[in-house]
Amino acid sequence: MKKHDQDFMKRQNRLTVFEIIKNQQPISRAFIAKQTGMSPTTVSRIVGELTEEGYLLETEQVSAGLGRKSTLLAMVDAAVLSVGVELDRHRIHIGIVDIQGKVVASGTYPRAADESAEITLERIGAEINRLTHENEIDCARLIGIGIGLPGIVDNDNGVVIFSVQLGWKNVRLAERLKEITGYDVAVDNELKVKALAEHLKGAAIGSNRTALLGFGNGVGSALIVEGEIYRGKTNSAGEIGHTTIDPNGMMCDCGKAGCLQTYINIHSLLAEANKTHPVRTIEELFEARRAGERWAVYLIDRALMYMAITINNVVCMYNPDSVILSGELADKFPEIYQEVVELCITRFVWEPLRGTFTILRSELSEQGVVIGSGLMSQNCFFALE
Amino acid sequence: MKKHDQDFMKRQNRLTVFEIIKNQQPISRAFIAKQTGMSPTTVSRIVGELTEEGYLLETEQVSAGLGRKSTLLAMVDAAVLSVGVELDRHRIHIGIVDIQGKVVASGTYPRAADESAEITLERIGAEINRLTHENEIDCARLIGIGIGLPGIVDNDNGVVIFSVQLGWKNVRLAERLKEITGYDVAVDNELKVKALAEHLKGAAIGSNRTALLGFGNGVGSALIVEGEIYRGKTNSAGEIGHTTIDPNGMMCDCGKAGCLQTYINIHSLLAEANKTHPVRTIEELFEARRAGERWAVYLIDRALMYMAITINNVVCMYNPDSVILSGELADKFPEIYQEVVELCITRFVWEPLRGTFTILRSELSEQGVVIGSGLMSQNCFFALE
Repeated sequence: MKKHDQDFMKRQNRLTVFEIIKNQQPISRAFIAKQTGMSPTTVSRIVGELTEEGYLLETEQVSAGLGRKSTLLAMVDAAVLSVGVELDRHRIHIGIVDIQGKVVASGTYPRAADESAEITLERIGAEINRLTHENEIDCARLIGIGIGLPGIVDNDNGVVIFSVQLGWKNVRLAERLKEITGYDVAVDNELKVKALAEHLKGAAIGSNRTALLGFGNGVGSALIVEGEIYRGKTNSAGEIGHTTIDPNGMMCDCGKAGCLQTYINIHSLLAEANKTHPVRTIEELFEARRAGERWAVYLIDRALMYMAITINNVVCMYNPDSVILSGELADKFPEIYQEVVELCITRFVWEPLRGTFTILRSELSEQGVVIGSGLMSQNCFFALE
Repeated sequence: MKKHDQDFMKRQNRLTVFEIIKNQQPISRAFIAKQTGMSPTTVSRIVGELTEEGYLLETEQVSAGLGRKSTLLAMVDAAVLSVGVELDRHRIHIGIVDIQGKVVASGTYPRAADESAEITLERIGAEINRLTHENEIDCARLIGIGIGLPGIVDNDNGVVIFSVQLGWKNVRLAERLKEITGYDVAVDNELKVKALAEHLKGAAIGSNRTALLGFGNGVGSALIVEGEIYRGKTNSAGEIGHTTIDPNGMMCDCGKAGCLQTYINIHSLLAEANKTHPVRTIEELFEARRAGERWAVYLIDRALMYMAITINNVVCMYNPDSVILSGELADKFPEIYQEVVELCITRFVWEPLRGTFTILRSELSEQGVVIGSGLMSQNCFFALE
């Protein structure tokens, strides 16, 4: 039995109305009611609240048949901005995101792999100040900060439970960054916010069940079902990188052997390559493959095969209508897309599920986490206010 | 954005009220409203409909504080029965299921592996007649038939898209069986209805995210999220048996190599065993293991390891709060439960997710599919009427 909590329904309804106006403006109250199945009274109440708060305005009147006039509603786009932050091992990427998901100002800052959470958060606070100041952004319009990062995140409480890449454990990120900046802070796993961004503004608009795959310094996935992130019990759903593929396989940094990610992630590929040839970067490895070096061809071909296997395994488990390839490997080497699709079609996807989904390229690429984090922060704001 | 369809909400609300009364009777209208967040008017309307249709009755009056009296509602249990059918390669199992999920009469019938759909459905119709007749069941109380079977099922249209075990493809099962019997027919994948049964009446009552695993003639899983079956786009979610575990592995009947199920399912185990020793049944193979025969120990130990890997992979992908072991292997050899749990804890489950879920034994065992199918049929009836 589904839990029907009244407050939850109210927040959902508010967010639904907000999303419809944002995406379909200009639009009438009557048409919102028709689309949502909400009562005209409920729609009018929510529209009234949002107008009073300065987020909506009434535009022209149009004839709604039989001589009745209907007022159209539109967003005050300029009214709301949020900060989206992508936090990675070696890099911090900050963007100011408007209500349509456009990045109006951004900056990228290096980060030392062993930098403490305290230092990182103070730097994020300072860079947000500098960014808004330099770009003459009215801070009164900033409604909050969203952060996406690799690792397991307790999104309800804004706590980073565990992140191998950042080297953090049990960091109360939302609480501390709010102390530093004064803004409300929403935190989530990077692939979950990226999937949200692709669903709202990128490759998966209109898709009902999107699985986003990330191939980079780790391997992971995120699932969006009917517009909502599927989280699981501890917001850890989608951790396909640690599904076991071969109990006799290579050691993973998690302490198990044969995790899927050991065949694909950049760190593993470089470590394997360096057993025979000195290779410093993933670009050099791909260069060697293009030059026909047998060891590089072998390693990359194997990684691509395991990407196709990842797609098969995700499709068998989630049965999505679309799969998005993302992450550093997909972004930097767009040529692999076609090869992986080919492997899926010819060999690796279970026959009954071929044709039930499309394989998409990420559209937002390295902007995805910043945009998704910014939009997540706005969603929290509009749903909770 | 979530789709808010008014008819859908109405059906959901009706089903919610029905479920609450069924599980918490006797109960007052006010308490239903409080729990669901529905308005008292909505609750009264739904209760009125259900009472008029003969499914509810008013029982005693109780004081609800400050002298106000409140009437309690209860189910007319005897008012509703449904037929649950488990359809398998070699067997048909039919049960008459009451509103509490109790099987009040049942029968089991052999089936030839190559029996046509037409013959199977005619036989099911005849056996339902005989069963109701012999047990003096009032057919006016039967509200429909539910069927669970192995394979990919279009549950919206009651069509079996594809079932290796039954040897069927594109069979319009619901339509044909309704022609034969006159009853509405609901059809679904066996693991999905089994998971529903365990959630409503078995091991996973109160769990919000249950993953049920089936280890038998195939390997599969089903996920229940907040009381609802997670289906995916074509009702194929959970097909973990065809996730690829080893691209150099054994051939699977699906035409791929190294599918997870090739290490676990009964057919594979017997085929592998017979390469060195004649073994006719899975019982004989387990007997040989108990006797310390090295080849049998090796095969079963490997299967148990892959069961633990299945649990890890399901937990990484779905992040459930409980995992239920079911299927012929789990039912016939209850001793494997402890061994698999041990393997999970000591080696195969990814460390950050240990302790986020419990591993449960199926409670309904070989009754699960019949009970789940019967309850599914009742849910369709009460939600759609």
